[in-house]
Amino acid sequence: VSARTLAQVGELGFLRRLLPRLPRGRDILIPAGDDCALVRMGSRRLLLTTDALVANVHFRPGWMRPDQLGRKAYLVNASDVAAMGGRPRFALVSAGVPPGYPSRDLDRLHRGLMAAARETGALLVGGNLVRAEVLFVSLTLAADSPPRPLQRGGARPGDLLFVTGRLGEAALGLRLLLRDPRAGGAAVRRFREPIPRLKAGALLATERIASAAIDVSDGLLQDLRHLCRASNVGARVELASLPCPARVRRAGADGYTLALTGGEDYELLYAVPPRHLDRLRRLRPSMGCPTTRIGEVMPKTHGVRVVDARGASVALPAGGFDHFAGWRR
Amino acid sequence: VSARTLAQVGELGFLRRLLPRLPRGRDILIPAGDDCALVRMGSRRLLLTTDALVANVHFRPGWMRPDQLGRKAYLVNASDVAAMGGRPRFALVSAGVPPGYPSRDLDRLHRGLMAAARETGALLVGGNLVRAEVLFVSLTLAADSPPRPLQRGGARPGDLLFVTGRLGEAALGLRLLLRDPRAGGAAVRRFREPIPRLKAGALLATERIASAAIDVSDGLLQDLRHLCRASNVGARVELASLPCPARVRRAGADGYTLALTGGEDYELLYAVPPRHLDRLRRLRPSMGCPTTRIGEVMPKTHGVRVVDARGASVALPAGGFDHFAGWRR
Repeated sequence: VSARTLAQVGELGFLRRLLPRLPRGRDILIPAGDDCALVRMGSRRLLLTTDALVANVHFRPGWMRPDQLGRKAYLVNASDVAAMGGRPRFALVSAGVPPGYPSRDLDRLHRGLMAAARETGALLVGGNLVRAEVLFVSLTLAADSPPRPLQRGGARPGDLLFVTGRLGEAALGLRLLLRDPRAGGAAVRRFREPIPRLKAGALLATERIASAAIDVSDGLLQDLRHLCRASNVGARVELASLPCPARVRRAGADGYTLALTGGEDYELLYAVPPRHLDRLRRLRPSMGCPTTRIGEVMPKTHGVRVVDARGASVALPAGGFDHFAGWRR
Repeated sequence: VSARTLAQVGELGFLRRLLPRLPRGRDILIPAGDDCALVRMGSRRLLLTTDALVANVHFRPGWMRPDQLGRKAYLVNASDVAAMGGRPRFALVSAGVPPGYPSRDLDRLHRGLMAAARETGALLVGGNLVRAEVLFVSLTLAADSPPRPLQRGGARPGDLLFVTGRLGEAALGLRLLLRDPRAGGAAVRRFREPIPRLKAGALLATERIASAAIDVSDGLLQDLRHLCRASNVGARVELASLPCPARVRRAGADGYTLALTGGEDYELLYAVPPRHLDRLRRLRPSMGCPTTRIGEVMPKTHGVRVVDARGASVALPAGGFDHFAGWRR
């Protein structure tokens, strides 16, 4: 592995080697590798997460207004908090900005970020501003944890798999923007502005509905594999049940590529034990978003498979999003 | 102000406009604008701070080994915690890395970061890795707060001004590296590896010795001006008393430029009311570093002045470090 570059090893390849070497300690209740870390400070339990948006990797100039960029930098972090069932409290932003960037735009970026934080009950409490050749916005979020936060591990064979909202729409938006930076419409709006499922996540955790959860940021298949690996299980996903708008199906080569591997959905994928289905049904109207059954948790030996309407296994598109592989077109 | 660039407005100019607009709330005990924010989560008080190192701004390739870069990314944040008297607990790293960066070097960077965290009692609990055209390492630190954290505001006329350690050495190191990337020696070591004054900061806070404090990261004069503005006071600094090694004095055009405006010292500048001097004298041996009296807090009308051995005002070198102005040579 010695002299290989990040492009060769990949983001996941590198993290898989790094994570087991991260420190353990009695004050780390859930270590790095889940959507957030859960730590103990005195009697208090705290969720911590960080994520960054980088120009020419996550967006190109002209795709988003500065306020939209600030909003998105916040919302993608809030989605990680939603996946554990937490409540965002305090945000810190670390921005790298080219010297020629208009001061007015940086102002708008911060306003967008602060507005998005406020809408989810959080406050921007600090930040840092440095010169950088390429614009980046890195955000860290501290959040309240529910008594039993959702984790990637915990799904058991027989649990049913659900996903909130719709899949593939943001990926379609990205595709449209790559073709025409002035593109508009629902898909582009969704790419620009993720919707963190905070209410759904909080209910799934506090009402003890879900046995495991993850936010779908790198494509359903890849994040499902993360959940399965952490839970030591397999999964069967029914293609026909994926909540995927017709315009997204029409855009994918085989109808479901964007829903399976698109990335940036920021929906919640979660597993529900059959005995909790009644509770889910009862609380569904309070989740603030649609939620759809898409499959079932299987024993590990089954692997992760996607089946069509006749139950036949579907050949899976390769991987999901890896920052070091760049944009799929 | 409308269409000006960051380079024209400057880091401080921008932050001065932004800070008053940051949200307030009863859970924000000390808002952004100090070295850390102090927030309340339940019964717990928490210090939060973030800072980033960016290639070609804070360092050039070849100046530091990857493990040294990871260490420094951690230590500059720990210095902000030291300035409030806090104890670092949990770190999150957000790294942007070019695709061609060796995986082995990123590994070393994380090892250096984790080692530095461990040495100060903190744990790396999470992170994020993205592709970026230019290497950056952004770090966020959550820390325990002392009952009465040190702040920039609080100095009163008549208080005495002290600084820990030595000034200007890191700036000399930077100058040597700009001339020759293979330069070595104590000054270069100091540039590569700041020493956060955690023990000193904790003592100054818990023993209620200091009335105000700040970490000297952008040059003594600039950070003194921050402290004076927050405390609504002026200050007189005695040039001859600055703890400035002979090799640093020889390097500066007028002997003290590097000590006054050099930047990256990561020492603590603090004010001590005369009635606390006995306590300071008693606890000095426990601070883990030298500490030197450099002047006195004055009424606001006096302004911030530096005087020579005969008491005459010295013409001050312009400003301190501003990321958007670039390196001074």
